[in-house]
This record gives sequence, structure tokens and C-alpha cells, in this order.
Amino acid sequence: MSQNYRELPKKNFIETRDLLLEHIGEPGFENVPLEQCCGRAVARSYFAPDAVPNFARSPYDGFALRSVDVELASPDNPVVLKIVDEIRPGRVSSKILSKGEAVKILTGAPVPQTADCVIMHEKTSFTSTAVTVTESMKPQQNVVQIGEDQSKGCLLLSKGTVIDPAAAGLLASQGFSEICTYRKPRIGIISTGDEVQEIGRHLAFGKVYNANRYLLAAELQRLRFDYEYLGHCSDDPEQIAELLGTGLQQCDAVITTGGVSAGDYDYVPEAMVRCGVDVLAFGVKMKPGMACCYGMKNGRLCIALSGNPASAMTNFYAVAAPLLKKMAGYAAVCPKMFKVKMLNDFSKTARADRLLRGTLVLENGVCEMVASREQGNAVISSMSGSDLLAVVPAGHGPVASGEILDAFLI
Amino acid sequence: MSQNYRELPKKNFIETRDLLLEHIGEPGFENVPLEQCCGRAVARSYFAPDAVPNFARSPYDGFALRSVDVELASPDNPVVLKIVDEIRPGRVSSKILSKGEAVKILTGAPVPQTADCVIMHEKTSFTSTAVTVTESMKPQQNVVQIGEDQSKGCLLLSKGTVIDPAAAGLLASQGFSEICTYRKPRIGIISTGDEVQEIGRHLAFGKVYNANRYLLAAELQRLRFDYEYLGHCSDDPEQIAELLGTGLQQCDAVITTGGVSAGDYDYVPEAMVRCGVDVLAFGVKMKPGMACCYGMKNGRLCIALSGNPASAMTNFYAVAAPLLKKMAGYAAVCPKMFKVKMLNDFSKTARADRLLRGTLVLENGVCEMVASREQGNAVISSMSGSDLLAVVPAGHGPVASGEILDAFLI
Repeated sequence: MSQNYRELPKKNFIETRDLLLEHIGEPGFENVPLEQCCGRAVARSYFAPDAVPNFARSPYDGFALRSVDVELASPDNPVVLKIVDEIRPGRVSSKILSKGEAVKILTGAPVPQTADCVIMHEKTSFTSTAVTVTESMKPQQNVVQIGEDQSKGCLLLSKGTVIDPAAAGLLASQGFSEICTYRKPRIGIISTGDEVQEIGRHLAFGKVYNANRYLLAAELQRLRFDYEYLGHCSDDPEQIAELLGTGLQQCDAVITTGGVSAGDYDYVPEAMVRCGVDVLAFGVKMKPGMACCYGMKNGRLCIALSGNPASAMTNFYAVAAPLLKKMAGYAAVCPKMFKVKMLNDFSKTARADRLLRGTLVLENGVCEMVASREQGNAVISSMSGSDLLAVVPAGHGPVASGEILDAFLI
Repeated sequence: MSQNYRELPKKNFIETRDLLLEHIGEPGFENVPLEQCCGRAVARSYFAPDAVPNFARSPYDGFALRSVDVELASPDNPVVLKIVDEIRPGRVSSKILSKGEAVKILTGAPVPQTADCVIMHEKTSFTSTAVTVTESMKPQQNVVQIGEDQSKGCLLLSKGTVIDPAAAGLLASQGFSEICTYRKPRIGIISTGDEVQEIGRHLAFGKVYNANRYLLAAELQRLRFDYEYLGHCSDDPEQIAELLGTGLQQCDAVITTGGVSAGDYDYVPEAMVRCGVDVLAFGVKMKPGMACCYGMKNGRLCIALSGNPASAMTNFYAVAAPLLKKMAGYAAVCPKMFKVKMLNDFSKTARADRLLRGTLVLENGVCEMVASREQGNAVISSMSGSDLLAVVPAGHGPVASGEILDAFLI
């Protein structure tokens, strides 16, 4: 099958992505210290082992008292209570409140069981021994109830949720010090192409610096995946196959750039086949990013992208990133599509879906987009600052300013 | 001045932030390898040392030829050209094209000076020695011009731009291997409060686990700043001052949580004064997040946040994060405000600006927001997944579904 990759039917980017997603299984999991788990997905659902807070607590500095004692309190009928204790946060009072007694209480301290409400100190007058109350209080007024934040047994995070800072705080509030998360995929990067030269020395005529290596590395850093640069190959099928083979042993996924069109020296798909990769997609109906090749070997993913930076990255965002997220165990892997109103026009037409890069503008209460002025395959300069891709459907004519397109964040 | 911090006038969060921003100077800079510079701000403007591409190149696999030779070419008048060379990417042809000659050329290869256009191979018929052209070509047709991506001397990145993946690719495309970036601020975290217990052992009655430490650490990781946890202090002004003093020696900024209200055991502002910190703001008119204290000592920033996680993080997003971004040299430090339409209501009123946390919904082409169901100061469970804060202005009544609020992304 994979031998005849040139005959694989070309699909659009959503069909291609969804077809490939089916081939990616659930990753392994491992326990990770809480401080290192941000950006990883939890490998099981987390439920609250305890209520938070697990004691009734005071939300203010003030006085804990029995509401029955101040039932008739008013400015005309001030009630004076005797202060019998002071409760600081983290401390417990052993005092049992009798009629006419109150305890001074600080924010976060446990409300004694024999009190049933808290009055803010600003609403009282007080000395070190007595507090005067001039208003009535309801039972449980100003008492943070047990489980007000998290009830015991409630769902904290469902399986596959990516841990954000608040989720890390949530897990900490329940005392979890190690979190069962999915393994992060380790991703190898290979650059190919006789014209590609590493940075660090003078550029020879006819050569271009290796920008894709840094683009991809930075994108993988942004996604918090681990990566390694495996090296550069010239346009030589044996050399490519050798490095790709090494990569597929060391890494969960390998991404190559260059050598993936249908030209005479586009040896990457051939090298994939030589390595025993089952090619699942060769090319995708999109522009830029049409040239690509995707395959699997023993659960490991091989992603061959174009050597043109804008093509490579557009295909990466549309197809590759969701696959890598699935390899990292994320429950939500596909970007959400939403409507944007174009603030400028774009004259080129395309037979395939065209993905326009640009900037999301939210300032007018509507979702608008400024498409980058340069949309060429090889243009890097217009990519910086872009935060979304809008889809001009296949066969659509020129896009006018004011038109509504589907888009997704990158 | 800082001794009388309780008398400092309380301002709203924007006034407080802007006042504090004025006290933060330009950070130092350092050269960083390109691969490690993502998320840092460039400490100088970068201009293109060379054009990209710096040679005229072919965008396709095809044939480079002289347009004059195919001036009259048509299906009825096919023109046959002799193939005199093949140019692969990264290679240079020494051939000078004479009348009736063409060279086979691959994508990315330099177009010979004696050719002035490229025809895609799909539009021709060819053998190994001759190519038949049936259409006329214009001079420079299908030739990627010198500087088409970046002209020599053009601005690549202005000073203070945060390096994103595309910017890393852009710098690589110009061969920069080390980038002059601003130093990242190193931030110390201190937790305070007798009721706060570190995770890892059974929670004593009346105690709460230290969630703020992990919330802040994760948020600083997300911002790509360096941080260290300096430790936990009980509510003891000397102990707090000692740890704060150490922190202000080791770090560019120190963030504390807890002990910052106006209560009897809120010793953090006092500890700041003891350490010689010039207190610039004590409290801010916002809810949650009112309790806070900000000051500077020798260019180092001291940020005291509430012990209530939602208060701490709201204040962090609204006031602290822009300050830390300025310390990192970012040109853009304040979040952009935009309008959102509320998809649910919120009944509480506030005398200060109330910052509602919630989720941005973009699916209907307009910016909408679902406010989290719980907005309490101490509630962590509703923070996970939140991506924006909407501002209910001071004195505003209950917020109705459908109402438009100003908001910013966190």
C-alpha cells in the first residue's frame, strides 16, 4: 500500500487530519511532580479526595458569634458581647461559646462550631474584651461553608485535560504532589535539501539558511513538547532514510522539511518507504502546505513537510499539530473553527482550500482579521505576529474586505 | 513615604498598573543562542543584513528559458528548446543560454542570468534533451525576485518585540545565530500564612494546602520567566522580612502571597518596609484582588498578593504581569481591551471595578463571554480554563446577559 503512495487520493486538510488521527493511539503515562506538569494532559480523571475548604471558615477579619444573641440588635439596641478568644488562621479554638460571648476571628480561620455567623470588624465597635453589635445576623451569615470551592468527590479535571496554571493550583489545593499524566511525545527534526545551509557561516551563492529548523523547534517549545534536532541531509534518499530510521527509533514522531513535492529530487517519501513507514497521506488539498507526506511505523509518526517555511508551518498548524496533541493525550486536539470578518481583501483564487494567515482583531466586539500582506509559500517575514489561519474554500473567488470566513487560532 | 503606606491613595487597577510601570526601567541585555530566545524580547531592532532570497530563484520544477524564444509559442506553433543543463537547488549553472536553449530547473534553484522566466514542467512536454513549449512567457514570469521575502536593510523586528516561532525563523533566515535579547527577570515566590501547609502530608484541621505557590509557578512558566520558590513563612514579621530580604538580593522581583490585608496579622507590608522597600501602592480598587502591596527597592520589584487564590491571580493578571513584562523588556506590556457580550448574568454589585473571570467564545463571529459560575475570592475550581477577565465598572449594577463589557485576555 505505502509503496504506491503517489496513488493515494488527495483530501482536504480536515479529512487528512481526521484520517491520520484515527491511526494514533493512547500514549503511555507516568507520574510527574506537580511543579512540572503544566502543559501535560492528565492520564486519568481527577476527583476531589476532600472538600475544599474542609472546615467552615471566616471570609473576613471580625467576630464569630451566635446569631441568636444579636437577634434584636440595632443602632438603638446595641448588643455587647464578651470576647472570649481569638482565632488566627491555621489555629483552632477550644472555647465553647455561651450566651453573650463572641470570639475574635481572622480571615481564613475556622469558625467555632458553637458560633454560627461572622460579623466584619468594620461593622462593629470593639475593645480588647468586648464587641458591640448594632445589627442582626442570620445563621451561617459570612461563613464559608465546607466544600464551597470543591465538594468532596466532585470532578476536578477530566481525563485528557491539559493542565493550565489554575488546574495546577486546583490539584495543589487537594494536596496532590505527583500527577498521573500522559507522556510528552519526543519529536525529532530533520532538515533536508542541498540548498539548505546551517546558520553560523557565510551563505554560499544559491543557498538559503535553515529557517525551518528554528521555526519548528520554537513551535514545539511553545507546545511544550520535547524535541531534538537530528540533523541535515542533502537530497540523497539513502542519507535521508538513514537519519529518518534513527529518528524513528529515538523519537515518537519525526518531522522533516524539504524534498516532499513530486519533483525528481524529492526523496523524502521514498526514504519513508525504505524505512518501513506506512504512508497514509501524500499531499493535501490546501495552499500553502499542499506538499507533505504522513505515515506511521510501529505507532510512531512521520511528518514530511515542505521546505518552504510558510507551506511547512501552515500544514503543521492544520494537520500535524492536532496529531502531536493526540500523541500527548490531549482530549481536545482540533482547533475550534469560528467566523472572522476580513478587514482587507485577497485577490488570488485557488482550486484547493487556501489558508490565509493573519492577525485576529477583537477590538470592535466582533471577530475580525487582518490578513498578512504577503501570503507566499516561502515568505517568513509576514508570519511573525500571525495568530490565526482563515480558510478560503476551494473554488472560492477573490476575497473581498468585509467577507466572513471560517478561521482557527494557531 | 513608604512608612505611611496605609495612607497611600487607593487607585483602580489601570491607574495602579500605570503608576508602577513608571518605576520600572530598561532591563539589561545579553546574547542568547537563537534556539533559546523564544519568548524573550529583542534588545535592539533587527534589520535585514541581506536580501532573502539573495538570488533570483525558481518557485517550481520546470525549465528556465529566454522569453524572447517563446514569444510566438502556441499550441499551433510549438517551440522546441534544447535542454543544455540541469540546475538543482543549491547548485549554480555556468551555462550561458543561447537562442533556442533552456535549462531544467528544480524548485528553489537559482535562475541563470541568461534566462528570464521559468515554465512549470506540467505545462510542457519534454524529453531528456528537449522541451516543447506551447505558450508565450513574460520576462520575469515565475521568477522569485531577489528580496521578495525580505529586502536588504528592511526592519525584521523592532526593539522590544517578543520572539515568536516565526520571528525565530525570520532571524534564522538571515543567519543570526546569537540574538541580543533583554535578560529574563528572575522571580522569587514566597508563601505566607500560619494556615498554609505544603502538599505532601495529611492536612491538619484548620489548614489549607499551598495552592498559590503552584498557581504562580505555573503562570511564570507560561510567561517563560525564571522563578524559584523561596519558601513559606508563618505570620511573623521578622521571618517574612528575612526571607523577603534574601529574595530581593537573589531575584529581580519577589512575589508573596498572604498577609496583605489590613488585619492584625497582615505583616507583609510591614516586612517590606523593614527590608527598605519603597511602598508605592497598598491596595487597589478592584474586586477580587483588592488586597495587595507593591514596592521597589534598588530597581527590584516586590509584589505582595492576597492569600486567596482568585484574588491573587486577578491582581496578578491586571497589575503584576504587565510589570514583569516590562522587566523583561517587552515593548507591549498591557493587555489590549476589547468588547465582549455576556452570555450569562452576574447579580453582585461592587463599589470597585469587578473583574469577572470566564471563557471567551468566538464561534458566532462576535466576541462573547461565559462568566465562570463561581467568582469567589477563594475559589480555584472555576479558574481552570478561564482565558479572560471582563471589567464590571465600579458602581455598575447587576450585569445582564447580553450586556457589553470591556475585557482582556489573560
